[in-house]
Amino acid sequence: MTQAIYPGSFDPLTNGHLSIIERGLRIFDRLTVAVANNPRKNALFTVEERIDTLREALGDDPRVEIDSFEGLLVHYCAEREVKVVLRGLRAVSDFEFELQMANMNRKLDNEVETLFMMTGEESFFISSQFVREVQHFGGDVSGIVPPCVLRRLQEKTQ
Amino acid sequence: MTQAIYPGSFDPLTNGHLSIIERGLRIFDRLTVAVANNPRKNALFTVEERIDTLREALGDDPRVEIDSFEGLLVHYCAEREVKVVLRGLRAVSDFEFELQMANMNRKLDNEVETLFMMTGEESFFISSQFVREVQHFGGDVSGIVPPCVLRRLQEKTQ
Amino acid sequence: MTQAIYPGSFDPLTNGHLSIIERGLRIFDRLTVAVANNPRKNALFTVEERIDTLREALGDDPRVEIDSFEGLLVHYCAEREVKVVLRGLRAVSDFEFELQMANMNRKLDNEVETLFMMTGEESFFISSQFVREVQHFGGDVSGIVPPCVLRRLQEKTQ
Amino acid sequence: MTQAIYPGSFDPLTNGHLSIIERGLRIFDRLTVAVANNPRKNALFTVEERIDTLREALGDDPRVEIDSFEGLLVHYCAEREVKVVLRGLRAVSDFEFELQMANMNRKLDNEVETLFMMTGEESFFISSQFVREVQHFGGDVSGIVPPCVLRRLQEKTQ
Amino acid sequence: MTQAIYPGSFDPLTNGHLSIIERGLRIFDRLTVAVANNPRKNALFTVEERIDTLREALGDDPRVEIDSFEGLLVHYCAEREVKVVLRGLRAVSDFEFELQMANMNRKLDNEVETLFMMTGEESFFISSQFVREVQHFGGDVSGIVPPCVLRRLQEKTQ
Amino acid sequence: MTQAIYPGSFDPLTNGHLSIIERGLRIFDRLTVAVANNPRKNALFTVEERIDTLREALGDDPRVEIDSFEGLLVHYCAEREVKVVLRGLRAVSDFEFELQMANMNRKLDNEVETLFMMTGEESFFISSQFVREVQHFGGDVSGIVPPCVLRRLQEKTQ
Repeated sequence: MTQAIYPGSFDPLTNGHLSIIERGLRIFDRLTVAVANNPRKNALFTVEERIDTLREALGDDPRVEIDSFEGLLVHYCAEREVKVVLRGLRAVSDFEFELQMANMNRKLDNEVETLFMMTGEESFFISSQFVREVQHFGGDVSGIVPPCVLRRLQEKTQ
Repeated sequence: MTQAIYPGSFDPLTNGHLSIIERGLRIFDRLTVAVANNPRKNALFTVEERIDTLREALGDDPRVEIDSFEGLLVHYCAEREVKVVLRGLRAVSDFEFELQMANMNRKLDNEVETLFMMTGEESFFISSQFVREVQHFGGDVSGIVPPCVLRRLQEKTQ
Repeated sequence: MTQAIYPGSFDPLTNGHLSIIERGLRIFDRLTVAVANNPRKNALFTVEERIDTLREALGDDPRVEIDSFEGLLVHYCAEREVKVVLRGLRAVSDFEFELQMANMNRKLDNEVETLFMMTGEESFFISSQFVREVQHFGGDVSGIVPPCVLRRLQEKTQ
Repeated sequence: MTQAIYPGSFDPLTNGHLSIIERGLRIFDRLTVAVANNPRKNALFTVEERIDTLREALGDDPRVEIDSFEGLLVHYCAEREVKVVLRGLRAVSDFEFELQMANMNRKLDNEVETLFMMTGEESFFISSQFVREVQHFGGDVSGIVPPCVLRRLQEKTQ
Repeated sequence: MTQAIYPGSFDPLTNGHLSIIERGLRIFDRLTVAVANNPRKNALFTVEERIDTLREALGDDPRVEIDSFEGLLVHYCAEREVKVVLRGLRAVSDFEFELQMANMNRKLDNEVETLFMMTGEESFFISSQFVREVQHFGGDVSGIVPPCVLRRLQEKTQ
Repeated sequence: MTQAIYPGSFDPLTNGHLSIIERGLRIFDRLTVAVANNPRKNALFTVEERIDTLREALGDDPRVEIDSFEGLLVHYCAEREVKVVLRGLRAVSDFEFELQMANMNRKLDNEVETLFMMTGEESFFISSQFVREVQHFGGDVSGIVPPCVLRRLQEKTQ
């Protein structure tokens, strides 16, 4: 059985993330969506809120597990005994960062492999940062985030 | 069982390709290395020579199949009933081409997914084109191609 | 009245080109779609065929003129007394080429300005080259070219 | 009459911005230079100071209006009933950000189009950030900002 | 005698920096490694600690001088009467920043030239930022920093 | 005495090349401008014509030597006993090619170092290919090539 970890901030979850998860499940038997808990980053949603949102958006798919981790991704992979990391690639700036990160992770733990999927045409311009910015200024982000994220964003800004 | 196709020109096979194959076999149960037969490209080695080289370099690993194809990759995937394509990513210029190609292939056949691996540090500067160029001018490409390719390159230029 | 020239090879016309033309007409009162006649490039369609295709695809819109030119774009602009060039931007590799070209054109004729539009999400992976390649191998390009191009492509490959 | 909005931080105004404004006025009948008021960004000059600087640098050209806005650019465009946004492009990193932003804005308001001009050779290395940095350390920025900005920068650092 | 200044943050020194210094000494007779003292950046090590680390790592090579500077690099070059700056290039994002910086510096002082070396294959994925991040989370950075940096990093995190 | 080789096609020589040569002579005591003789490339000028042009443009500077070479650059460096190669960098696409080439050359001969200079603002959009193209169509390339190249280009196209 092939298993992969899909790590990210998911602050908030976008339709771009959902598309990677859905496509990932066509390839891997089991996918762990892992919310990175980075206390030094100023987050909009708490880790718990992000986990709840993922649960709500992904429903009860037995092939998907939702978790969080703190610290190095390779340590989390070792602890979970998963050797494959899944990441989406959207732009050249992503690419360079991910190229360096994937090689750094292989240096830290030679067992861990990172596989990349190209973001689909419909979401290559979506980023969590844009969603936060647009929402902050009262723009309409329906269509680029799932309904459960839309609701939570509206609760935040009320 | 997860199966993937690793397509390419392999003209000639480099240590960069071998590294992707080896790393791919840690993730996929079975890998089909598929030599693209593009009659419009001026090749150094024939498709048959490239298949022979792959056989010699990869030995008798039952998890690896060596094949060739002509025409569209998505047609070949459908014919072989494989839904996953594996590709290596080395540079930004690769990235943009592959981003467009992967989206084009998804448009042509929504079932086919392309997964990418970042080329390792030791081979990010190796390309088949450089190997052909260096060999043409009598440079030493040992260390960047496997011994069986070195031998065949030397036979070509004698 | 603001007038612009939209130059290109259009070999063949794609839905990406049509989208730029349609969006250009929201900004400019009049748009000249100018087929570049480059005798040194190996074209799939003749200039006449490409003009016919544009006519068929664009219909009788009085705001659109279809023309062809040979030689330097700045000379054509001067001859037509149009000072604005419209171009689509799709990828980083486009960007660098266009950046150099736009500055070169301003050097050649300081009066000519090039304005760029970002290719929309639905066509950022479409290129005429991909269309020719896919069609050559019997792939389905409906959805990425207009029906009149599809018909002509099928006639070519019969 | 074609009208465009040229939004930016202008913190401070550089000769690069002035060049885009001057070139923009050859194409558009009327240009609104709109200072983005982003309270979360640490600015060197207040929005009022930046507006004053623009007024001083641009003089009494009846074709230019100087304004400021807060919040989403597409909302400001709708409020002002202007459908065209003008932006300068300088580098690949700009390009990717602007590509995503332009598509995001089209998603938020399909009526708004962004047109890009390539920064001229003489100012492709100028950024407001570099100006602030150089000025902070006592470097000479004459030649890359207009005289009225130079004076205000010197007043700031006295 | 050709002399160059190799400026940087060195927070901390990595094997990538050491490789540039070693390769630089094959070309220049004398190299000044200059620690940039930027009070506005949140540093892990003080300037003094970074100078000590460089001393420990580089030993008593009479061709190498270790120094620090504050403010503009071109001012420091003028003060030291050195006209050549050496920089490593690792990635496209580096490239654009360095392209702009080198042209800005030539604008500020036409006498100062910046020369670039491509980072070697073994360290193209190493950055001081990654080292700080990995160390913070208890990852093993031996092999990507020299032993004296490893020791100091461990002292910091105890 | 520090010596460097500045290799290139120089087909034709542009003001961008001349600027790199002039700036290179501020750093190196002696510069060998080496015309690459690539029989597989379709050249506009013969190697002899390109050497003559360089002689005419550079005059009798005793610090500059003009030469040509065929085959691998590292072999030519070894033969000439020069360990430093000088190259200009203009754009991201250059950067990636040069990054790979510099690492390949270090692999082929660890003694050879490549140093890069950023192309100045006044010539970042000039390429020999653009010059050939513009001249072919009767455009004015004075100001981007030296007078002796202009004369030879006009002789070619008469």
